[in-house]
Amino acid sequence: MSDVFNEGDDVLLYLDAKRRYLVKVTKGREFHTHRGFINLDDLVGKRSGERTVSSLGVEFVALKPTVVDYILKFPRLTQIMYPKDIGLLLMYTGIGPGSRVVEAGVGSGALTTVLAYHVKPSGRIYGYEVEERFLENARKNLMRAYVIEYVELKHKDITTGIDETDVDVVALDLATPWTIVSHAYAALKGGGVFASFSPTVNQVERTVEALNVEGFIDVETIECITRNLKVKSGETRPVTVMIGHTGYLIFARKAWKR
Amino acid sequence: MSDVFNEGDDVLLYLDAKRRYLVKVTKGREFHTHRGFINLDDLVGKRSGERTVSSLGVEFVALKPTVVDYILKFPRLTQIMYPKDIGLLLMYTGIGPGSRVVEAGVGSGALTTVLAYHVKPSGRIYGYEVEERFLENARKNLMRAYVIEYVELKHKDITTGIDETDVDVVALDLATPWTIVSHAYAALKGGGVFASFSPTVNQVERTVEALNVEGFIDVETIECITRNLKVKSGETRPVTVMIGHTGYLIFARKAWKR
Amino acid sequence: MSDVFNEGDDVLLYLDAKRRYLVKVTKGREFHTHRGFINLDDLVGKRSGERTVSSLGVEFVALKPTVVDYILKFPRLTQIMYPKDIGLLLMYTGIGPGSRVVEAGVGSGALTTVLAYHVKPSGRIYGYEVEERFLENARKNLMRAYVIEYVELKHKDITTGIDETDVDVVALDLATPWTIVSHAYAALKGGGVFASFSPTVNQVERTVEALNVEGFIDVETIECITRNLKVKSGETRPVTVMIGHTGYLIFARKAWKR
Amino acid sequence: MSDVFNEGDDVLLYLDAKRRYLVKVTKGREFHTHRGFINLDDLVGKRSGERTVSSLGVEFVALKPTVVDYILKFPRLTQIMYPKDIGLLLMYTGIGPGSRVVEAGVGSGALTTVLAYHVKPSGRIYGYEVEERFLENARKNLMRAYVIEYVELKHKDITTGIDETDVDVVALDLATPWTIVSHAYAALKGGGVFASFSPTVNQVERTVEALNVEGFIDVETIECITRNLKVKSGETRPVTVMIGHTGYLIFARKAWKR
Repeated sequence: MSDVFNEGDDVLLYLDAKRRYLVKVTKGREFHTHRGFINLDDLVGKRSGERTVSSLGVEFVALKPTVVDYILKFPRLTQIMYPKDIGLLLMYTGIGPGSRVVEAGVGSGALTTVLAYHVKPSGRIYGYEVEERFLENARKNLMRAYVIEYVELKHKDITTGIDETDVDVVALDLATPWTIVSHAYAALKGGGVFASFSPTVNQVERTVEALNVEGFIDVETIECITRNLKVKSGETRPVTVMIGHTGYLIFARKAWKR
Repeated sequence: MSDVFNEGDDVLLYLDAKRRYLVKVTKGREFHTHRGFINLDDLVGKRSGERTVSSLGVEFVALKPTVVDYILKFPRLTQIMYPKDIGLLLMYTGIGPGSRVVEAGVGSGALTTVLAYHVKPSGRIYGYEVEERFLENARKNLMRAYVIEYVELKHKDITTGIDETDVDVVALDLATPWTIVSHAYAALKGGGVFASFSPTVNQVERTVEALNVEGFIDVETIECITRNLKVKSGETRPVTVMIGHTGYLIFARKAWKR
Repeated sequence: MSDVFNEGDDVLLYLDAKRRYLVKVTKGREFHTHRGFINLDDLVGKRSGERTVSSLGVEFVALKPTVVDYILKFPRLTQIMYPKDIGLLLMYTGIGPGSRVVEAGVGSGALTTVLAYHVKPSGRIYGYEVEERFLENARKNLMRAYVIEYVELKHKDITTGIDETDVDVVALDLATPWTIVSHAYAALKGGGVFASFSPTVNQVERTVEALNVEGFIDVETIECITRNLKVKSGETRPVTVMIGHTGYLIFARKAWKR
Repeated sequence: MSDVFNEGDDVLLYLDAKRRYLVKVTKGREFHTHRGFINLDDLVGKRSGERTVSSLGVEFVALKPTVVDYILKFPRLTQIMYPKDIGLLLMYTGIGPGSRVVEAGVGSGALTTVLAYHVKPSGRIYGYEVEERFLENARKNLMRAYVIEYVELKHKDITTGIDETDVDVVALDLATPWTIVSHAYAALKGGGVFASFSPTVNQVERTVEALNVEGFIDVETIECITRNLKVKSGETRPVTVMIGHTGYLIFARKAWKR
C-alpha cells in the first residue's frame, strides 16, 4: 500500500490517545468531530503521518491504520479479545505465514482479522460462528480490514464438529470450550496447538480437565495483564486505573494416543 | 514442512512443563537425559505428537518445534526478550507479512527470529549489532530457526545512523534507546512505528522525552505481566512465584514535522 | 461501645457494595436515599447488624462503623491513602498500642485516624500540616472518628524541623519527602522506622537517595496492589476494572552514625 | 521497652536485606554467621540502631525487633500468612485495641501474634488449633514475641463449634473455612466481621456460597499483591522475581436474620 492517501483509502485521524477516528477518504465529504470538521478531500495526496487542520484550527494527524487500529474500531456485537491477549495467543500457538487455523466463535471478527493478517498469503482461517447476525457483521469487518480472502467463514455450530483436519491450531473464544476439546483433537495435526480464551476460572477448570482427559500435553494457563506507565519527566508513575482482568488463555498440544 | 520426522529435522522432545529438549534427528545418535537416553534413529518416520520411550522406559513426546520453541532454546550471550513482550510488540507495531523492520541490537537473535518469521515471505528485517560475537551467535540462531533468508544482519553501531529509509517499524532493545530516536525518525516512513524495550524507568523517561522532542505522536508505555494459573480441579490458584518485571515497551508513531 | 444504637450514635447504613451511608442517629430526622428515606428514630434500640426498611420498602442494614468505614466517608480536601497502603504501613513500621508517631502531612486525616486508632490508649500521633484549612477539616474528621484525644495536631511546616524526639516512627505522605529525611533522622529513636508514601517513581528515587546519604538502613520500596475477585459459583473471575496504582511505600530504619 | 539492650533482650542483627538474625543478648555467648561471629556480651548497653563489628570486621546493626521481625523469624511447622495479607486483614476487620477475636487455625502463631499485638492491652485473641504440636510451637512463639498474655490458646477443633459469643471478628486460615461459617455467625456480635484466608479459588467459592446462605452481608474477596521496586538512581525498576500469589482474603459482616 502506498503511503499517499487516495480516494477510498482508510485513514486514522489521530487527535490524542483517546480520540482517534477511522474514516474513508471521500471526495466532497466532511468528517465532524467535537474539535471541528475535517474536509476529507484535503487528505487526498497527503502522506501517512501528515497533519491536517480542522475547521476549528485543531491539528489531526492522518495515519495509515494498522491491523490493530482496524479491530479496535470494528462495529461490535460482541466483546472482542484485547490486543494483549491476541499477541500472547500468536506467540504460544506459533501462528504465522502459512498457518491453517480453525477459529470459533468468530464474534465480531477481531481475533479472526489479526490471525488472517498473520497467516497471509498462503495460510487460511476457518471461522465458525453459529449466530447469523454476528457472522454478517464479522464478514463486513473482515472486508473493512482487507483480510476476507484469507478467511473461510462458516455458519455452523462448532459443537457439532469441525470439518477441517490436519490444522495447525484451533483457537476458541466461546462460552463452553470444554465441549469442543474432542473436536479440536480430531481436527488438529499431531503436535498442533489448542488455544482457548475464557473469562472465568470455572471455564478454565472444565477445559483443562477435558484437555487432560483427551490426552493433550503441555497444558498451560496464562493470564496477561498490561499496565500503562504515565511518563512525564520527574512525575513518572503507573496509571491510576487499569483493566484488571479480561480472561485466561489456555494452551495445549496434541499428542497421539498410545 | 511435513509432519513426519526425517533425518536432519529438528524435534522438541517433551517430557513435562520444565523439561523439553530441542535436538536434531540424526542416525546412529543417542540423546541422553536424566530419564534415560533416546535413540534418535527411532524418530525417523514418526509423526509430530507421537510418543517415544527412553532406555529407562520414560515416555517423551516428539514435537515439531514452533518459532517460540526455537528462541527459548537458543544459545544466548545476552538476555532475550520474553514471548509475552514480543507478542505485545507484534500487535502494537502492526508487523506482519511484508513488513520492513529495522532492529537493534540483535543480541541473541530471539526477537529477530520472531519478527523474521512474521514478515515472511516478502518482508525483511535489518538487524544491527555492534558486538561481533553476538552477531555470529545470532546468525547461527537465525539459521537454526530457518529464518536467516529474511534477515539482513549488519555489523554496525546503530548510534551512528540507520542505512534504511521508509521502513515500517524500528524495534529497539538496547541500553540507550534515546540516542537512536532521531535516527529512527529518519529511517521510518510517515506513520511508521517506533518500538523500544527497556528494563528501567529512567531509560523510559529519557526515551519518551526524546520521542516528544522529535515530534513522534501516540507515545505509549506499557508493562506486560503474565501470571500462570495452576489448574487442578478443586485446587485452582495462581502460581506462587512469578516473573515480576522484564521491561517496559514504548511505542510511538512518526508524524511529519510542520 | 454498646451494640445497641442510641441517639447520637454513628450508623453505617448498608445497602450494597457501592451504597453505604454514614449518618448519626437523630430523633425526628429522616435520611433520604434514592431508594427511599429512613426514619432515623427507628434505629434507636436496634442492634448493629439489624435491618431497617426505607419508605420504599428497601432493606438497609444498620452497622456500627469500623475505623475504615469512617475514613472512607471523611469529607476530603485531599486524596487519602488507601486502606491497603495503610495496612502495609502498619505492618512494616510496627506501629501498635503505645507507639509515638510523627505524621505529615495530615491532609484529610485518614492515615492519622487509623494510626491513632492503633496506638490507643497510651500512644500518640504528632500530626503536622502546613495548610490551615486541611488542618481544620482533619480536626473535625478525627473528632468524627473519636480519636482526637490521641493526636496532637500541629499547624507547622515540617520542612522546618520536627519538635519531637525519640519517636518510634515518622510517617510521611507529602510531595517532597526527601526534604524531611534529615529531620526524620533527628526525630527518630535508634532503630526507629521511616515510612513514606509517594505516587511517582521520581519521588521514590530522590527519597531513597536521601535515606542512603543520611545513613538509614534496611531501605525497601514496595508497591501494594489489590484486585477483587468477583465470586459467583461457576462464574468466578477477577474484576474487570481495578485501581492500577496509588503509590509506593518506602520504609527504612535509623542506624546511629559511626 | 528501653532502647538500650540488656542481658536477655532480643536483638535483630541486621547485615543486609536478606541477612538478619534474631538472637538474645546473653553474657558469654557468641553468635556465629558466615561473616564472622559477634560477641553477644558486646551488645549490653548498646542502643537500638547501634553498629557492632563481627570477628571478621563486618558491621552489623543491632535493632529492637518489631512485631513483624518476630513472626518472620518464628520456628514454623506451617506456612504463615504474609505481612501484606495480615495488614489488609487488620484494616478490613477493624481489629484494634480492645477487640475480641476468634482465630483458627493458630498454626505457627504468626497471625495470632500480630492480632494480639494490636488488641493490647484490653482485647483478647481466642486461638483454636486442633493439632497439638502446632499449638505447642505457637505457644512458644507467642511467648517469644511477648504477647501470650493477650491470647487464650485452645486445643479444640473449631469445626465442632466456637465457645465464645459476641466477638468482634472471626479470622480463619484453614483448609475448609466454609465448614466454620455457621459457627462464626453464632460467635459474632451483630455487624461483626468474618475474615478468611485461602490459597485456592475453589475454597473461596465454597466459602462465599456459605456466607451468602448464612445471611452475611458485604461479602468481598480481595487478592493483595506486593512488588518491590529496586531503587538506584538512574536504574530504578521493579524486581525481576516476585511472589505471584499467597491467597485470597474474604471479608463479610454479620447481619441479623429477618
